[in-house]
Amino acid sequence: MKKKENNNGSRLKIIPLGGLEQIGMNITAFEYEDSIVVVDCGLSFPADDMLGIDLVIPDVTYLKDNISKVKGFVITHGHEDHIGALPYVLRDINAPIYATRLTMGIIENKLKEHEMTKSVKRKVVKFGQSINLGQLRVEFIKTNHSIVDAAALAIYSPVGVVVHTGDFKVDYTPVFGDAIDLQRFAELGKKGVLALMCDSTNAERPGFTPSERTVGATFDNLFEEHKNTRIFVATFASNVDRVQQIINTAYKFGRKVCVDGRSMVSIIETARNLGCISIPDNTLIEIEQMKDYPSEKQVVITTGSQGESMAALSRMASGMHRKITIGAGDTVIFSSNPIPGNEKSVTKVINELIRKGADVIFQDAHVSGHARQEEIKLLYALIRPKYSVPVHGEIKHLKAQAKIAQSLGMEKENIFILSSGDVLELDKNRAGVTGRVPVGAILVDGLGVGDVGNVVLRDRQHLAEDGIMVVVMSLDRVGGELVAGPDIVSRGFVYVKESDELIEEARQIVDEAIVRCLDRGITDWGKLKNTTKDALSDFVWKKTKRRPMILPIIMEV
Amino acid sequence: MKKKENNNGSRLKIIPLGGLEQIGMNITAFEYEDSIVVVDCGLSFPADDMLGIDLVIPDVTYLKDNISKVKGFVITHGHEDHIGALPYVLRDINAPIYATRLTMGIIENKLKEHEMTKSVKRKVVKFGQSINLGQLRVEFIKTNHSIVDAAALAIYSPVGVVVHTGDFKVDYTPVFGDAIDLQRFAELGKKGVLALMCDSTNAERPGFTPSERTVGATFDNLFEEHKNTRIFVATFASNVDRVQQIINTAYKFGRKVCVDGRSMVSIIETARNLGCISIPDNTLIEIEQMKDYPSEKQVVITTGSQGESMAALSRMASGMHRKITIGAGDTVIFSSNPIPGNEKSVTKVINELIRKGADVIFQDAHVSGHARQEEIKLLYALIRPKYSVPVHGEIKHLKAQAKIAQSLGMEKENIFILSSGDVLELDKNRAGVTGRVPVGAILVDGLGVGDVGNVVLRDRQHLAEDGIMVVVMSLDRVGGELVAGPDIVSRGFVYVKESDELIEEARQIVDEAIVRCLDRGITDWGKLKNTTKDALSDFVWKKTKRRPMILPIIMEV
Repeated sequence: MKKKENNNGSRLKIIPLGGLEQIGMNITAFEYEDSIVVVDCGLSFPADDMLGIDLVIPDVTYLKDNISKVKGFVITHGHEDHIGALPYVLRDINAPIYATRLTMGIIENKLKEHEMTKSVKRKVVKFGQSINLGQLRVEFIKTNHSIVDAAALAIYSPVGVVVHTGDFKVDYTPVFGDAIDLQRFAELGKKGVLALMCDSTNAERPGFTPSERTVGATFDNLFEEHKNTRIFVATFASNVDRVQQIINTAYKFGRKVCVDGRSMVSIIETARNLGCISIPDNTLIEIEQMKDYPSEKQVVITTGSQGESMAALSRMASGMHRKITIGAGDTVIFSSNPIPGNEKSVTKVINELIRKGADVIFQDAHVSGHARQEEIKLLYALIRPKYSVPVHGEIKHLKAQAKIAQSLGMEKENIFILSSGDVLELDKNRAGVTGRVPVGAILVDGLGVGDVGNVVLRDRQHLAEDGIMVVVMSLDRVGGELVAGPDIVSRGFVYVKESDELIEEARQIVDEAIVRCLDRGITDWGKLKNTTKDALSDFVWKKTKRRPMILPIIMEV
Repeated sequence: MKKKENNNGSRLKIIPLGGLEQIGMNITAFEYEDSIVVVDCGLSFPADDMLGIDLVIPDVTYLKDNISKVKGFVITHGHEDHIGALPYVLRDINAPIYATRLTMGIIENKLKEHEMTKSVKRKVVKFGQSINLGQLRVEFIKTNHSIVDAAALAIYSPVGVVVHTGDFKVDYTPVFGDAIDLQRFAELGKKGVLALMCDSTNAERPGFTPSERTVGATFDNLFEEHKNTRIFVATFASNVDRVQQIINTAYKFGRKVCVDGRSMVSIIETARNLGCISIPDNTLIEIEQMKDYPSEKQVVITTGSQGESMAALSRMASGMHRKITIGAGDTVIFSSNPIPGNEKSVTKVINELIRKGADVIFQDAHVSGHARQEEIKLLYALIRPKYSVPVHGEIKHLKAQAKIAQSLGMEKENIFILSSGDVLELDKNRAGVTGRVPVGAILVDGLGVGDVGNVVLRDRQHLAEDGIMVVVMSLDRVGGELVAGPDIVSRGFVYVKESDELIEEARQIVDEAIVRCLDRGITDWGKLKNTTKDALSDFVWKKTKRRPMILPIIMEV
């Protein structure tokens, strides 16, 4: 490697294709000469104005254009915002996947659903192990996070090492496995690290995120306080450590545990097969067995902690669950915080549960999986990078990390707040943004990937706001005369049965406007349609101060 | 009064027509024999699934049915959730309005907009003053809140006194006017209070809400720290005390103040005319004068602290404001907290401002206007009511107050968690819910009041989700033959230009289905429409896993 470094002037390119200035959709290309390694391949959830969209994946045109260079996908951990786009991106870029054990287990579940297990190469990597990918080498380093088997990456290039933390926190007393490998970060730092790409999610928050284990102590207290009730605990499906702790406490108190919610059942099963969770015998029961045990001997662990209307908890609260109903005498613990944007739906479920008579506990039974300011400082102190590239977060989070780095003495010009699509080129002597590659959000709606774009979204927003009025009429092919209509059909505009008059008046307005056109010999469809739109929208605005979409359709007979 | 009380068995009815188990839309009827007094008449903002709705007002059928009894509207303070429905409700129930000075000023602005000033009787009431309204008497008592001139009410009936706190906090050092009249509450309590209806908004929060004045100290510090930049402060339009404090600090630092945002300008003007705010001479400047002063001598107070996309702050951040652009070197202080549900839009504006290079401060420059647990306890300790009826809030807030009341020794059966529409009847000896009256949310969309109901909303949700496919065809009146179409026009479904094939295939499917029907002699329009819907929706679901609204239209020629 030394030789190469001296022999040419190539630089390492770091190209985030998503995940910067946004939450989710994490994907970054590392490129050195003919080698590209892709770190993570996540999805994001649709913004409020993306009506009807199921999920959002990154535009990987840059990878497609350089497909021969792509050596593989290296995945830091098994959360959707880091793995969720894999089944879509792999269709175009079928490169091998490298990940730790549980991460790969979750990816494999996903590939199964998409019937891709046979076509995609995968390799499970151990912590401490390195993978050669063309001119780049990637080492997996143990970290802690809200999912088991999370990894940081050391990416070795001929011009230096880049450390990418993935999502991480520093947990000296994790529930499963080892604490974050701080020694290795120190060792790398001692040898010299070119750049640090560090998680910014909690960079605005002072202090140190508490250990996952503190939640276990909280469960012990809560179970003690609610000895005589059935207990429900809602948490994130993928937080295997959290489930482990609920099970530990349940076992301590002699309760049987039922897990409900498809995604949680699937991940627990995967974790169990891989030995990432240990469940005492005769502790888990099926939902059908619950009736065999008294309420105070039961715990239900469930999804739906974000208020998702179709998840198990919401259905149990609203009486729509086929097997379990939550009511008076039940205790419900939210072991989660609302993700920004979900506050209202979480509150809705809490209110519904309280209305049904349940005792709801929604404080203190959760810790974050992301490093706060003191942990971020610790990583910087161990690694002492030449350059800093804050990752994972909106611009306010990235800026917050930049402030931390500056407070530790880093020069402002060595800290890069990138936008997705920026090409950062760096070597030992200099670093800078040298260009842009195409990036974007591709919307997935049902089976359609990318067939819903701005035009369709704008139409959906328009329809959502004030509905639609369809105006149909038939013209005679020969004479150009009106032989039927205009008729008006509306949806989402007014309740038609009570607005007969308004609609009839509107019909007459259009009729007169069209007849006036035809009388003057105007038979151009474009003009007739515009006339219809103008006349109708003026009338409707005057009468209702609304602007429904107006869709004129002319038929020729 | 003594006499009446002994002479008949009438009881006082308390009937919340809105505001319970929800945020906003506060309105409560107090009824004794032939007298009804209505306390507050607020609106609420549309829930997420109320697409296209502007605002929501209460159903006042009960008042309409008892219109001869309604003696007046008594208003606690000038926030939208307490006054916003007045212009709509007054159309049906034109009773006089009683309110304190600034509250009435704000109501009058509203009536002006609706051209109702002449038709509605109004009386400004002073603190300590009582109003006789039939068999009921209402006394206005000074409180503190995030708007000047907020009042609690003592409602005297022949069977006892009910104290309604309105929205309140305990502020020993308010910015304008006196502290809450704790002595009067104590005096009433000493004499005996039948029921307390107390604000629940912050009942989940321990401790004591800090004084509004603490925010002033924060402004002093922030202005000191940002001496060399232009400063923007975003806050709620109606928080006159907050604006007063910003102006005080600006004056101290020799800065000129420009107020931007229509609603804020209007309220400040009203407050100034009424002497509720004092602005030193030569401090306020017009937006056009800003160019005459250096940046570090300017403060802009603006609306938009909730991330409202059309408010001044958002427009200044996105470069859409005609006169001011925020950029590098500017400091923006959010003197507000996001109202639940607004977190994402607030974050969006913050990120936009940071991206433009502004220094954004969004912590510590705000205090709530609602009492926390210790303040609520104080009110209970002074008033010592026989019954408790927690008001203002979702069920979780109401329950939290009920817990506080119980912790103070109140019996559970004397605490009433009501739903809107419940009729609580009470006298000195007993209290209980004896019936229900009709209640509901009436949706206002543009000029339409109540013409958008569940059917229209469901259609809008359907349209928003997957768009619409309109299928038109013309049938021969005589032979029942297809003479034109079927044609398909879609909106909000797929981007049509790239989906020619899909649409053409869909057209053929419908064509074949219709021809099959006609060939078999089926010409019933209902059947033809159902055939179209079934054939098309099956096909579309299979191809796209989407369910657009399908709207078949048949014309006869």
